[in-house]
Amino acid sequence: MNLARQQSSRLLNASMRAAHAPVGRRAASGFAKFNWEDPLNLESQLTEEETAIRLRYGTGLLPGPNAGRDACNCWLISVVTGESHAASASWMAHRRFGSQDCCHFQRKLIVDAEFNHDILPEMGKLGLLGPTIEGYGCAGVSNVAYGLIARELERVDSGYRSTSSVQSSLVMHPINEFGTDAQKEKYLPRLAKGELVGAFGLTEPNHGSDPGSMETTAEEVDGGFIINGSKTWISNAPVADVFVIWANCKWDNKIRGFILERGMKGLTAPAIKNKIALRVSLTGSVFMDSVRVGHDALLPRTKGLGSPFSCLNSARFGISWGVMGALEDCIDRTRTYALERKQFKRPLASFQLVQKKLVDAQTEVALGLQASLQVGRLKDAGKVAPEMISMVKRNNCGKALQQSRIILDILGGNACADEYHVGRHANNLQVTNTYEGTNDVHALILGKAMTGLQAFAN
Amino acid sequence: MNLARQQSSRLLNASMRAAHAPVGRRAASGFAKFNWEDPLNLESQLTEEETAIRLRYGTGLLPGPNAGRDACNCWLISVVTGESHAASASWMAHRRFGSQDCCHFQRKLIVDAEFNHDILPEMGKLGLLGPTIEGYGCAGVSNVAYGLIARELERVDSGYRSTSSVQSSLVMHPINEFGTDAQKEKYLPRLAKGELVGAFGLTEPNHGSDPGSMETTAEEVDGGFIINGSKTWISNAPVADVFVIWANCKWDNKIRGFILERGMKGLTAPAIKNKIALRVSLTGSVFMDSVRVGHDALLPRTKGLGSPFSCLNSARFGISWGVMGALEDCIDRTRTYALERKQFKRPLASFQLVQKKLVDAQTEVALGLQASLQVGRLKDAGKVAPEMISMVKRNNCGKALQQSRIILDILGGNACADEYHVGRHANNLQVTNTYEGTNDVHALILGKAMTGLQAFAN
Amino acid sequence: MNLARQQSSRLLNASMRAAHAPVGRRAASGFAKFNWEDPLNLESQLTEEETAIRLRYGTGLLPGPNAGRDACNCWLISVVTGESHAASASWMAHRRFGSQDCCHFQRKLIVDAEFNHDILPEMGKLGLLGPTIEGYGCAGVSNVAYGLIARELERVDSGYRSTSSVQSSLVMHPINEFGTDAQKEKYLPRLAKGELVGAFGLTEPNHGSDPGSMETTAEEVDGGFIINGSKTWISNAPVADVFVIWANCKWDNKIRGFILERGMKGLTAPAIKNKIALRVSLTGSVFMDSVRVGHDALLPRTKGLGSPFSCLNSARFGISWGVMGALEDCIDRTRTYALERKQFKRPLASFQLVQKKLVDAQTEVALGLQASLQVGRLKDAGKVAPEMISMVKRNNCGKALQQSRIILDILGGNACADEYHVGRHANNLQVTNTYEGTNDVHALILGKAMTGLQAFAN
Amino acid sequence: MNLARQQSSRLLNASMRAAHAPVGRRAASGFAKFNWEDPLNLESQLTEEETAIRLRYGTGLLPGPNAGRDACNCWLISVVTGESHAASASWMAHRRFGSQDCCHFQRKLIVDAEFNHDILPEMGKLGLLGPTIEGYGCAGVSNVAYGLIARELERVDSGYRSTSSVQSSLVMHPINEFGTDAQKEKYLPRLAKGELVGAFGLTEPNHGSDPGSMETTAEEVDGGFIINGSKTWISNAPVADVFVIWANCKWDNKIRGFILERGMKGLTAPAIKNKIALRVSLTGSVFMDSVRVGHDALLPRTKGLGSPFSCLNSARFGISWGVMGALEDCIDRTRTYALERKQFKRPLASFQLVQKKLVDAQTEVALGLQASLQVGRLKDAGKVAPEMISMVKRNNCGKALQQSRIILDILGGNACADEYHVGRHANNLQVTNTYEGTNDVHALILGKAMTGLQAFAN
Repeated sequence: MNLARQQSSRLLNASMRAAHAPVGRRAASGFAKFNWEDPLNLESQLTEEETAIRLRYGTGLLPGPNAGRDACNCWLISVVTGESHAASASWMAHRRFGSQDCCHFQRKLIVDAEFNHDILPEMGKLGLLGPTIEGYGCAGVSNVAYGLIARELERVDSGYRSTSSVQSSLVMHPINEFGTDAQKEKYLPRLAKGELVGAFGLTEPNHGSDPGSMETTAEEVDGGFIINGSKTWISNAPVADVFVIWANCKWDNKIRGFILERGMKGLTAPAIKNKIALRVSLTGSVFMDSVRVGHDALLPRTKGLGSPFSCLNSARFGISWGVMGALEDCIDRTRTYALERKQFKRPLASFQLVQKKLVDAQTEVALGLQASLQVGRLKDAGKVAPEMISMVKRNNCGKALQQSRIILDILGGNACADEYHVGRHANNLQVTNTYEGTNDVHALILGKAMTGLQAFAN
Repeated sequence: MNLARQQSSRLLNASMRAAHAPVGRRAASGFAKFNWEDPLNLESQLTEEETAIRLRYGTGLLPGPNAGRDACNCWLISVVTGESHAASASWMAHRRFGSQDCCHFQRKLIVDAEFNHDILPEMGKLGLLGPTIEGYGCAGVSNVAYGLIARELERVDSGYRSTSSVQSSLVMHPINEFGTDAQKEKYLPRLAKGELVGAFGLTEPNHGSDPGSMETTAEEVDGGFIINGSKTWISNAPVADVFVIWANCKWDNKIRGFILERGMKGLTAPAIKNKIALRVSLTGSVFMDSVRVGHDALLPRTKGLGSPFSCLNSARFGISWGVMGALEDCIDRTRTYALERKQFKRPLASFQLVQKKLVDAQTEVALGLQASLQVGRLKDAGKVAPEMISMVKRNNCGKALQQSRIILDILGGNACADEYHVGRHANNLQVTNTYEGTNDVHALILGKAMTGLQAFAN
Repeated sequence: MNLARQQSSRLLNASMRAAHAPVGRRAASGFAKFNWEDPLNLESQLTEEETAIRLRYGTGLLPGPNAGRDACNCWLISVVTGESHAASASWMAHRRFGSQDCCHFQRKLIVDAEFNHDILPEMGKLGLLGPTIEGYGCAGVSNVAYGLIARELERVDSGYRSTSSVQSSLVMHPINEFGTDAQKEKYLPRLAKGELVGAFGLTEPNHGSDPGSMETTAEEVDGGFIINGSKTWISNAPVADVFVIWANCKWDNKIRGFILERGMKGLTAPAIKNKIALRVSLTGSVFMDSVRVGHDALLPRTKGLGSPFSCLNSARFGISWGVMGALEDCIDRTRTYALERKQFKRPLASFQLVQKKLVDAQTEVALGLQASLQVGRLKDAGKVAPEMISMVKRNNCGKALQQSRIILDILGGNACADEYHVGRHANNLQVTNTYEGTNDVHALILGKAMTGLQAFAN
Repeated sequence: MNLARQQSSRLLNASMRAAHAPVGRRAASGFAKFNWEDPLNLESQLTEEETAIRLRYGTGLLPGPNAGRDACNCWLISVVTGESHAASASWMAHRRFGSQDCCHFQRKLIVDAEFNHDILPEMGKLGLLGPTIEGYGCAGVSNVAYGLIARELERVDSGYRSTSSVQSSLVMHPINEFGTDAQKEKYLPRLAKGELVGAFGLTEPNHGSDPGSMETTAEEVDGGFIINGSKTWISNAPVADVFVIWANCKWDNKIRGFILERGMKGLTAPAIKNKIALRVSLTGSVFMDSVRVGHDALLPRTKGLGSPFSCLNSARFGISWGVMGALEDCIDRTRTYALERKQFKRPLASFQLVQKKLVDAQTEVALGLQASLQVGRLKDAGKVAPEMISMVKRNNCGKALQQSRIILDILGGNACADEYHVGRHANNLQVTNTYEGTNDVHALILGKAMTGLQAFAN
């Protein structure tokens, strides 16, 4: 399952493929066939490994142009419904809106709002957890590959992608980046397998967009530290085994990360109930009432807000890919509906007002993916700036939300029936547009970069 | 002036530069400095030649990070005002809003609405005309380089870019693509030098978005053809020496192109007066009253609408780059204004509502350029589909128009003073959003590609 | 409970109140105090009776400027939770986001998705059902008063307003308008009391926006008619006692209405499950398999689509008021949140980006209500045109949806917690923007009125 | 020409007309015919006098449903072109896009950018200047009538309405409101006749949105005051005879108004050249270098910013009506064009994408006018709040700008030809959206009213 290779050779491969194309006058006047599902030919810019990842992890049961995508759906459906891969594949191949199976799957996605404990282990088996990390049983693939995985997962539901983002970017990343060898050995292999569930505690009840005002504290005491405070809107918290908690250290007023574990005295993590979005992903609070940990709980290389921001930047990068996948699923479903549904004796898809909606959405997908690809290439090359990630996170989340809502209307009355999926995606995307930096906060991050003036507190 | 090289080696160079970056864990955690003027590091994706073109053609008088851009302004200012390069450069270096010189330049751009006959020859000297053509005195550079040229020209004014687009994509391209060797020898070198001005006659008074209904006809007669009909909204027409005219051939009902020349009996090309946009670019009608041409006027490899569409696709690709340049100039100017202008004792640039406007605009520039870059790379590789060009033409023009209008408001009352430039750009961009396929027509071209159903006549 | 009076005297009252204001120069230079909750002073344009209705029906338990509004919430809460009015009022007066009671109420609204059988009888007691009808135990108030009722109900939930709209506009209205005296005597009093629940069957599985293609048929047989067909997205259907069903009459191909009753052989009305919106309002299908009815089931004055459209116009008018109420509740809640929630040491409400969101939303409320008021006055005077109703239905629903989504973002992460209400409203408003004529269909109705050209099938 | 009557009787008339309509059940089910040009029947809410004003001042030459509108065009055309009313009327009746006459008129409107000195005297003759003032030769009509006049004038050009707004609201209003009897006698009659041109000096080069930071000063000296400072973006300044200038009084730091006159030593008022909008309305700066005035120049009842704000509120109210007129003209012209222009063998007006644009624009007109009507009625009754005026000024200007730009695209390539008018209107509307309080500043004024928190300096 270790897919790591040399970054440089991968990039060469990509350019080679492009270079093999005929050049000169003849080439310039020839035209290729347009593929609406990949309007700007993203595929031609991927390395072989990246393409393989896109296709492979879904088990490859399904042939055809949508192999990877359907495979992903198929694989997750199989986990969620408890059916065999073959049964799920067969179901996928003949999927109809509103079928019984579909409703069964949907109930799991929306109505029950249950966390499926098999998801993370299955992801682990497929090498999807902490995939950019080298060693510790991780795949060591490129950041672009990580983005591709996020995109495929979020086609199914933003909640599954969220669960995996937290595990990979917010828990495994900081342990790998800021932890000791012992911490890495202890946690990374089991997190990579999905045996342990991770959570990331930064946001507090009174401090969402300004983590600098954090109230959670760490105090050094004999034999370790005492942590006090509370965190909220913490994904995975109610089922997490491992918590990366950020606290203000009383001895020097610097923010540092600590690894806490389920079962520690004084730590509770109740679920937030009745969410109207991301229902397959559990969210909770973390209350820490004088939780005592040893010195080995400290992530030693963390110091200041730069450390959690490093995690957020990794997660935000993945989100920028993921939301494009969710929007692609919305487009796919509304387009199919518009082709099948007739009004005034003609398919909806033949109406100008409908075509414009679909085209606007697909254009934003094409542009958003190109932008994230470039950020991913720069990230792989160590040349990314955090503001670039703010730009693609903000743009892609904002556009995915906006466009999913617009095309939702194509479904007419069926828009509010959850077996049509698009409304569920749109609700999810409202959350992705808000978490890990709201749309407005990222605007102000970029505004500061453009003007040199900070306007957060204005 | 011949800059041609091997496409493949250029592409390799680009990837090599990326590949030189450090890889692995260390790289992934490092951050680069953000450059708001190139948010996603487009520069890193250019070949050395492309970067050189961006910088060079402006004469390189001005150092610093904006060398190429200011150079372009400087060079054009020099031509337009008749001052020396050095004087223009000095003026550029100290440019202030509302200065006398600026007003002088502005009057040329807006008030006088005159075509400057020195512009095309100067462009010719710099190798900017027909730059992707190999031979005939053309530069033979990549399509991406062509896009970069369009972007720099349109920073100054969409009208100058329009003039050059017509010459390169709509006149030189079809002669090179569909003409005889004799036609190429006769016209291309002089067009490349800007000694001849070209025009492209497709649109008719009653047929803008549906050229298939063309009414202009060609009839074969002894010794050649007789052309009858009229064309309108033809850029460059009033000053053109060479007209590529499209006509429906009576003998087989196919559309073909013909090369007409100024002075032919029955051909007149009066100007359309009182335009409120693109005032430095002349526009006119072409009336053909039994214009008789020899057999050598026929572009022999044209047949059907595919031929003029090939020209339009080349031009549209360039437009998709150009409009981003215009929007960049708008951003640059409003940002500077917002930093200098104070209200309530604080710079405008420190207000949230102002920052959001600037950031939205810059984000669209970054995304639009990435998309056009990818389309350019595919075009260079002979893998482009016309719908891809529709997508970037439509998106970039639409976004440039929308965003330029929004940031125009930052100027407050000064928005309507032409020495602040942004209003002029916004008016120009309304035209670019409409010509060569309106925003809606491109939506329906893409809608047809997505759904298989045409909705143009709906 | 009969509130009927002379229309003309009411209108005079309204103008009198305005006329009592001082006039002339002195008046012109004075300024009144601005009330953000009623920005354009709608209140001053209401008759005394209308103001009384707004305040009274909520039982008047709560004093203060928001008496009517809170009363409505209080009254509905009392019904939904089964608590006493006093308890509910006390709860309202101290309501805090996220309180236990609030969650309890919310569970009823969202999670359980149960129809509350006490709601209609309670509405009946308050005179809210069929309120514009004179006689039969109905209140006989103005159309504006009907709109005010819809607005107050929808502050709580669009589903409650939907239930009442169906009863009043889609069931009682056609019986009153097109029925025999016997039909009126039989059904209206019990519908007015909420003893009977009504449903309206027009939309079919294959025909939403084009009811003219209706497939349900009525065939005349000995002793009556046989009805065959199916209807879908029928509000109240699963619990309805009385169904107004529209069918194509085989004998003359005209569409007519029939009154069917629960329990008739061949009639079934299963619920549509798992809706993501309007969860307190039941929706279902109606299947009619050779349902035999007597001649007295025919609504004799119906003939052609004009009859159901008359019902829809009544309902759409009410919706145009209702959605403004939902948006007002969203504004009220997000504004309170923004005042209480601090980030960067300042209330959210002090940020420019937040203020702009709130102001845009409130402006649309103010404009939408003025427009609906004028349509109501014209409706009362018999001078309304259906296109006017299309205009306010489309505008108010579209704006309510758009603005509720924008201000939802003010809640940040809490947006997806249902106890903050706004996300629930936004989901509901997506449905109101679609049902009873989608936004696009109303655009085309108005487009036809403006151009004389129909474009529905384009 | 004195049209003054009792306000109360007017209001009664309006309600009487409504009351005459049949009431009750029969009325409720009848439908009126829809008039797309007056979608919500504004006409039915006007007093007879107001309707008369709308129709009369244009001289009534033209019969038919558009009498008032065409008359206004006709009257202004007559003045601008120097032709007789009859000739202009005949021209109007047969107006075609692109006709010679039209071009002639257009040249006056755009290309020449000249102030027409006959306009104000002609307006004076028609009673359009200072029309709400009683006495001094003014008409003494309602504020709604004032709004109707602004709407008709701005159908032709925002510049003409601006000229009249300045004269009426910014010069005659403060003299009438804050002046001595002597000042009123001296200036008002001649201003009302258009013999004198007025200007209003509040905005300064460094202080647009925050007049509180004003730098112009008044110092009391023997025999009067000395005024120093500069004003900019002052409409009418280059041709003004009378200037109402606001200055910070050194003796008590309060802002007061002074009446200055052309020819005073130290006062110059050069024009701002090369505007790209409002070209028929002159704009200039006012420089005051120790201008000495007598005590009688002081407007004695001014004190503090409330005084100029009173003027701005009067002007802003008129603008809210005027911009609706400009948008109505844009709709009228693009609709006609869309009906006449065919593409793909069908009129543009039959395309869904075109209908939606027209309908969105017309809806905003209908809503905007209803809102302004209500504000006007409250203003007449002395019950208006300044924030109400901010709301309609901001909304109507913003919507007019947005919608005019959208429908401009219907003209395709012709959009940039000034004889199609719409581009000119759109450019004008950018200015109206900015002057007298930018869109954002009014948002923050309303934001403060909604939240109690000021965010101007944020």
